[in-house]
Amino acid sequence: MTTYKAPLTDMRFALFDVLRADETFARLGFAEATRDVLDAILEEGARFTETVLAPLNAIGDREGCRYDKASGAVTTPPGFREAYAQFVEGGWSGLTAPAEFGGQGLPHAAGVPIKEMIDAANLAWGNFPLLSHGATEALLQHGEDWQRELFLKPLVEGRWTGTMCLTEPHCGTDLGLLKTRAEPQADGSYAITGTKIFITAGEHDLTDNIVHLVLARLPDAPAGVKGISLFVVPKRKVARDGSVGEANAVRCGSIEHKMGIHASATCVMNFDGAQGWLVGQPNKGLAAMFTMMNTARLAVGLQGLGLSDRALQNAVRYARERLQSRAPAGPKLPDKPADPIIVHPDVRRMLLTCKALVEGGRLMGYHAALLVDEAHAAPDAAQRERAEALLGFMTPIVKACLTEWGVECTYHALQCFGGHGYIAEHGMEQLARDARITTIYEGTTGIQALDLLGRKVMQLQGAGLRAMLEDIDAFCRAQAGNPALAGFLPALQAKAEEWPRMTQAIAQRAQANPEEIGAAAYDYLMYSGYVALAYWWARAVAAAEVSAHPDAFKAAKRETARFFYARILPRTLTHAAAIDSGAASLMALDAGAFDA
Amino acid sequence: MTTYKAPLTDMRFALFDVLRADETFARLGFAEATRDVLDAILEEGARFTETVLAPLNAIGDREGCRYDKASGAVTTPPGFREAYAQFVEGGWSGLTAPAEFGGQGLPHAAGVPIKEMIDAANLAWGNFPLLSHGATEALLQHGEDWQRELFLKPLVEGRWTGTMCLTEPHCGTDLGLLKTRAEPQADGSYAITGTKIFITAGEHDLTDNIVHLVLARLPDAPAGVKGISLFVVPKRKVARDGSVGEANAVRCGSIEHKMGIHASATCVMNFDGAQGWLVGQPNKGLAAMFTMMNTARLAVGLQGLGLSDRALQNAVRYARERLQSRAPAGPKLPDKPADPIIVHPDVRRMLLTCKALVEGGRLMGYHAALLVDEAHAAPDAAQRERAEALLGFMTPIVKACLTEWGVECTYHALQCFGGHGYIAEHGMEQLARDARITTIYEGTTGIQALDLLGRKVMQLQGAGLRAMLEDIDAFCRAQAGNPALAGFLPALQAKAEEWPRMTQAIAQRAQANPEEIGAAAYDYLMYSGYVALAYWWARAVAAAEVSAHPDAFKAAKRETARFFYARILPRTLTHAAAIDSGAASLMALDAGAFDA
Repeated sequence: MTTYKAPLTDMRFALFDVLRADETFARLGFAEATRDVLDAILEEGARFTETVLAPLNAIGDREGCRYDKASGAVTTPPGFREAYAQFVEGGWSGLTAPAEFGGQGLPHAAGVPIKEMIDAANLAWGNFPLLSHGATEALLQHGEDWQRELFLKPLVEGRWTGTMCLTEPHCGTDLGLLKTRAEPQADGSYAITGTKIFITAGEHDLTDNIVHLVLARLPDAPAGVKGISLFVVPKRKVARDGSVGEANAVRCGSIEHKMGIHASATCVMNFDGAQGWLVGQPNKGLAAMFTMMNTARLAVGLQGLGLSDRALQNAVRYARERLQSRAPAGPKLPDKPADPIIVHPDVRRMLLTCKALVEGGRLMGYHAALLVDEAHAAPDAAQRERAEALLGFMTPIVKACLTEWGVECTYHALQCFGGHGYIAEHGMEQLARDARITTIYEGTTGIQALDLLGRKVMQLQGAGLRAMLEDIDAFCRAQAGNPALAGFLPALQAKAEEWPRMTQAIAQRAQANPEEIGAAAYDYLMYSGYVALAYWWARAVAAAEVSAHPDAFKAAKRETARFFYARILPRTLTHAAAIDSGAASLMALDAGAFDA
Repeated sequence: MTTYKAPLTDMRFALFDVLRADETFARLGFAEATRDVLDAILEEGARFTETVLAPLNAIGDREGCRYDKASGAVTTPPGFREAYAQFVEGGWSGLTAPAEFGGQGLPHAAGVPIKEMIDAANLAWGNFPLLSHGATEALLQHGEDWQRELFLKPLVEGRWTGTMCLTEPHCGTDLGLLKTRAEPQADGSYAITGTKIFITAGEHDLTDNIVHLVLARLPDAPAGVKGISLFVVPKRKVARDGSVGEANAVRCGSIEHKMGIHASATCVMNFDGAQGWLVGQPNKGLAAMFTMMNTARLAVGLQGLGLSDRALQNAVRYARERLQSRAPAGPKLPDKPADPIIVHPDVRRMLLTCKALVEGGRLMGYHAALLVDEAHAAPDAAQRERAEALLGFMTPIVKACLTEWGVECTYHALQCFGGHGYIAEHGMEQLARDARITTIYEGTTGIQALDLLGRKVMQLQGAGLRAMLEDIDAFCRAQAGNPALAGFLPALQAKAEEWPRMTQAIAQRAQANPEEIGAAAYDYLMYSGYVALAYWWARAVAAAEVSAHPDAFKAAKRETARFFYARILPRTLTHAAAIDSGAASLMALDAGAFDA
């Protein structure tokens, strides 16, 4: 069984020492989000996730959700209902939702460490409240007043949960192909008919009602993505006084048997003339759905981060306890039969890789969350616009890199356990199986890469990249004389010069051949993630130096940064070479020749 | 459900066009191993694995092995017994074993494509006969005449299976710590007492008897690895006339619940004064065990290869069938609602990565198998010695790289399926879970890396590396004027110069600090694997050009080689940078500071 301890010290370091989130919150007018309040939330979140959620993680994996064909009901694993009740009771559901709908009105970034803790403690459980947040966002921004009145409060309070119903059997990435129909009814509602698959938390026993946000086509809607509208479809009909009425014509047809997140109900949802209401404008559903999707993408990035951290924590513990062989330079514990495996350079390589990716990734993820607040609440329009551009640029990087690193870190951590990592008893293999979904759902890594390079960089003329480069440049100038950073700044500056140059070269090649974008996209994304991490590791060292943390903490940041620059940042060499090689080596092979 | 089709065309290309295995076999005196015979074996192996083993793969995963506590018995999944009976019936068990013990006396390399097919078709099933081969080797080389007489024939015929009992709860990698005791008895046997864990096929219902090869300590044996002896311990005692008698005092205590290979019985074996017989010299058990281990390591490499190929085959099929979005340069199938996803550069990147690693890896793995035959049967002692050195050098590379690539390829292939890859129905997630053990058992990648750099390169003064570099040099000279290779040879030659230079630099640093070996080992191993693959891909292009294969086949080899050189070989840049960075960035962090 794996254990979990919320990394409060490093979370505080990220939020307060590096990102100065409390100052940002004050500047943005979140008067309640003081350091004291944030500290109290972190402490309480740690308690809840460590003692309530983490112990249910293995049970959830073993028992999974159960589906009853006769009733269409889904039963969550033992303890999940009680944990959810405590979650609602503790006010966690509405932490960052507007006060007028029963939320606590805290900034988005204040909720992000809690999200990380939930994901680390119990990823599958965390998927039940996860999409309530996206549904809340979509209704807030696109819903009519009466819809907000009716649906938002129960969502914010956690009495109901939300879903995003996009995927159909024949269409995932390409939503233009979707077939679910919405027929207008005399009372202004729509009858929704169609089958949606892979619907997270589509059915469960945690709440009385579920609010589905469903993409469907109106009659005579244009073909493709321009003919998609968004509807709100409650599991049980809701009267105008907010009371929950009879069952709507929507039913869970089955749940998937998956590699991991067994306790997360992944549902086939059959809509059979279900009563729904149009959200926002007809045929503008995709844009409204993207409101939910971007938040969800950042959230999935945090899932990768949380799992990485839990995996690392357990691998470090095991590597300190497991006695096996001797240190290369001679026994470290001569009185014991062998040394702990953490003395071995290769074990340290695996652990340090995780540590560098987790702590650097935390800064990257939390910073993106602060950009959400900046983009919403900065007083100045230019500031909001800049934050929006940088956020748009960083969202696919955060989603894809933190989840790819989640797969990598759970791999290394399992590997540290040797054969013991492969058996269920130690719990490491569950983390690896759970992590595997995160590079897929809410858009695969390949889709994030296209969003980054095709849309955020090429279509939007690189405003987000420019903002990022400005930030790096400003930092490098400010720290130019700082001896603590002498080992890092030259490499960072070199990458900050190479990055736009390489971007330009891709843009030029793409003018002649549109396939150049797709050919470069994945490597460009990963390259960008490592350069971003180089920036965050340099900032971590700078912030640690001037912080009140003890010398051992400062030394750990310095040494991990040194490891990152020596052994992880050189991954950019491979990615850059792949990018420079262009599309030709990918496109020449005949589709029929892939199996020799 | 995944399908499997034995890649006979590429197997034949590897064996006959590139490696000229039939010529080697003739030179080594294997008169029966003609092209015709080998072709017939390949055909029959394809039929057996495709129609008998492959359909049992998903059932095996779903049902797993069952353990009965009362009797200690292990029941294999439905169909496994029948398939094993067909395996024995078909003479597959003794394909490469000596004729005098009932085998077919074929060269080792002739069995390797069959091994790959079995692994691809049903890895877990393949683990039952797997270790019979190692047990056969150990008894052949180290057993007394009566032991060979008694145990070899049933092992070779497949009537019994073998195991390797090394690991104990407190010792895996570090066998010097093992505690199992062997007490001499009046009749010349030994009473073996102790607990072994992670014993593959330790108990099952496929055969009447199981031959355990067990590491244990004699009374007053020296501490550490110099006090380990090897014993043969049958599950049921065997009379001198070969008849199977009463149960020995060895019992399966439980089977592990694992991430994958559910149908492979991973047993805790309790020896409680079991009757065993010393194999080879007292206290020389580790060397005898390494006889088994090296063969087993090559075999596990093939497991990675087989799984990669099956994953690739299914991903290619899916990528051709799944219609989603349009090609970047405009519709390829305008009459269909969308194009098949194989048109997208990033999907091709994933598929080509698998293809380059699978087909290149096949050459590397089969070549190592030929070295086994060379090392045993070459007429000239110098030839045997050279083959032995090169084999020793390549064994950890084959084991570690083919299995790391197995994890990578099953990752990419699953990713091509998107969400459908994560659910059990499509079978892709089983391949990923099954692959995950291969980088662990028979020595983790980290252990292979130390074996390569610490032992094979540093202790043995690099004879294997020198042989490899000679082969590359000879090939480059011979092909110097070949226009088909103009795009490849300069890069290959550059790597062939960098490789020994980097090796020398590590050796120099290691003189001052022994930690430099462990610090460089993993990256050195992977670097070596990619350079070896660059050599094999160049050879593949050269061999294809002069072969009788159709132009489309030649073009596919050329284009895949081009992809490999453009997009995979640059991974050596990252590994070289990591190696050059030395041990300092790994060793400075205090063991207590890994969790911030």
